[in-house]
Amino acid sequence: MRVEDLVLVSVDDHVVEPPDLFEGRLAGTHAEQAPKLVRKDSGIDVWSFMGQELPNIGLNAVAGRPPEEYAMDPTSFDDMRSGCYDIHDRVKDMDANGVLGSMCFPSFPQFCGQLFARTAQQDADLALALLRAYNDWHIEAWCGAYPGRFIPLSLPPMWDPQLMAEEVRRVAEKGCHAVTFSENPVHLGYESIHSGHWDPFFAACEELGTVVCVHIGSSSKMVITAPDAPMDVLITLTPINIVQAAADFVWSAVPKKFPNLKYALSEGGIGWVPYFRERIDYTYERHRFWTGQDMGARRPSQVLDEQVIVCFIDDPVGVEMRHKMNVDMITWECDYPHSDSSWPHSQKRAAEVLDGLPADEIAAITHGNAEQLFRWPSA
Amino acid sequence: MRVEDLVLVSVDDHVVEPPDLFEGRLAGTHAEQAPKLVRKDSGIDVWSFMGQELPNIGLNAVAGRPPEEYAMDPTSFDDMRSGCYDIHDRVKDMDANGVLGSMCFPSFPQFCGQLFARTAQQDADLALALLRAYNDWHIEAWCGAYPGRFIPLSLPPMWDPQLMAEEVRRVAEKGCHAVTFSENPVHLGYESIHSGHWDPFFAACEELGTVVCVHIGSSSKMVITAPDAPMDVLITLTPINIVQAAADFVWSAVPKKFPNLKYALSEGGIGWVPYFRERIDYTYERHRFWTGQDMGARRPSQVLDEQVIVCFIDDPVGVEMRHKMNVDMITWECDYPHSDSSWPHSQKRAAEVLDGLPADEIAAITHGNAEQLFRWPSA
Repeated sequence: MRVEDLVLVSVDDHVVEPPDLFEGRLAGTHAEQAPKLVRKDSGIDVWSFMGQELPNIGLNAVAGRPPEEYAMDPTSFDDMRSGCYDIHDRVKDMDANGVLGSMCFPSFPQFCGQLFARTAQQDADLALALLRAYNDWHIEAWCGAYPGRFIPLSLPPMWDPQLMAEEVRRVAEKGCHAVTFSENPVHLGYESIHSGHWDPFFAACEELGTVVCVHIGSSSKMVITAPDAPMDVLITLTPINIVQAAADFVWSAVPKKFPNLKYALSEGGIGWVPYFRERIDYTYERHRFWTGQDMGARRPSQVLDEQVIVCFIDDPVGVEMRHKMNVDMITWECDYPHSDSSWPHSQKRAAEVLDGLPADEIAAITHGNAEQLFRWPSA
Repeated sequence: MRVEDLVLVSVDDHVVEPPDLFEGRLAGTHAEQAPKLVRKDSGIDVWSFMGQELPNIGLNAVAGRPPEEYAMDPTSFDDMRSGCYDIHDRVKDMDANGVLGSMCFPSFPQFCGQLFARTAQQDADLALALLRAYNDWHIEAWCGAYPGRFIPLSLPPMWDPQLMAEEVRRVAEKGCHAVTFSENPVHLGYESIHSGHWDPFFAACEELGTVVCVHIGSSSKMVITAPDAPMDVLITLTPINIVQAAADFVWSAVPKKFPNLKYALSEGGIGWVPYFRERIDYTYERHRFWTGQDMGARRPSQVLDEQVIVCFIDDPVGVEMRHKMNVDMITWECDYPHSDSSWPHSQKRAAEVLDGLPADEIAAITHGNAEQLFRWPSA
């Protein structure tokens, strides 16, 4: 394996939305009401929207800085590497890193569009107009600027599962086959995935081959063990907390009703998966009689293997144990421009982690699986 | 390896306390006030105490029953295998299972003696008398009935760290070098392990070589992802939830202040440890500058390797990955009489999971590590 020959497709990066995001995409009062970028006297950029100020960045848009300079503070566009928000510079940063393709999660609207869902509580028409404008901008302006370089990813109107299904359908016609969702909608004030409430959405996703992507942190609930716990505890636990979403999905009725649906655990790592697979089968063998669980012809691990897509940034243990899970569901992520990213050394680091694997597995993990699972580049 | 040659020492079993637990161990009003076992008209046995009724069993005291008959219902002593509460029958059940030694966690007082801590809010004298009586019964009557077969384990008076230190000291003189604690005292209404509040307790444990054992569920807080989540979700997540206690411990000041303290994650499994080790080191490398974390000469994985004892019931992935953690800290557990137990087939199942390991590693994992770490049998 030559490092520079590695073809990387990242299923988890982040876009910091540029100031012109909504320009020309909304009419009348909606255009007036749309979030506007404002520079404060302190030099910080914020989105001004419905009387509130929202930080313009995702936490830790720190690409290109040494770890010694990381911080949690919201900053201005000037403090940020231009690849965070400028599509042309983004592609240059991808080129410099050997990354062919990238799927970008949102920043200020939050992972499953919580901002628009909150807006809908006051003005559902405005919320839907903003969300559609966002998705159109993402697909047409961001991804569309460089065909074949970005996997489009839409946001769902979480306040209405029928609308969610319609939006999945609408963007699928534009070639978008991935949509975000919450790792746990209960924490956002919605019904759980056990409720049946989301079935219209899941049905549309299954029908159209659209992957449901739940990113860590998309429940807006962090793992706080204690008020005085060091920040390191939270950083450590946030990825592995996705195990809760995995358990919810596997044991829910969703994979029974929608056996062809694909559910991606974004930024969840993979090293815990082999252990988790054994645990769910052990649980099923010993407890299904009194819990009343019935998976039909499948075992829980089979549900996981067939329907749950996982990804990793830097996970040597998971790679070593790949044959204790479904290798065809393992994808890679760069996490640009966040602080866990391997950019700009992703090829080198991926080559180290994948050293010794057969060529077909390297191809599958670095790009082949992502291309197939996300139906990308679209035919 | 011959199956019948396996010597098993289990660091996590459970005692269902017998009706005569407090008999002869309390004087005066304390004797009158002590919990009394009562059979209700429905046939269920409960402990009557301070105007309340407490189920007499730990959940799932189901040893000897087929999985088809498991349930969460509280039952009577008549419905239970006598080895749950009768020391003589317990030893027979251990013999039948090839188990040389066993450490038994409490049932009705809860894992870190929450019952007595609640009592202390009303009557601290009574609470301490009951707790000491319990510990004496456990050490003298339960473990003492068969010298060399049980690793004694005391309960701590959680309401007062100085008292906790004194009790650790008191029972150490009786040969007890293990004590329970909570995986997260915050959920019990106490200060966190980050606070310094527990330092007198940890100091005594370190000084006397007493292992602090945090059992899954000892925060009295289960992982409920949603009100309508199937019970299977909770069963799956409860063990892996111990990862939160591991993160709290590693990143806290406790291992810095008490570098010789041993912290055991009881019923937490091991298959997640290699992934977790990588995650904490990755977090330290990338984030310590802004989080202000300073481990001195050690890396986070080294703190884990040196101070955190782990155990497993049935964990082939963890065993396969044992060289990605400290093999000297891996112990085995039976979990008798709970529903995850391998009893009465523990030797057979352990032999399957450990098949192919060198003899010295099998000896260490099945009994050698437990003997050394818990200083047992006492010299």
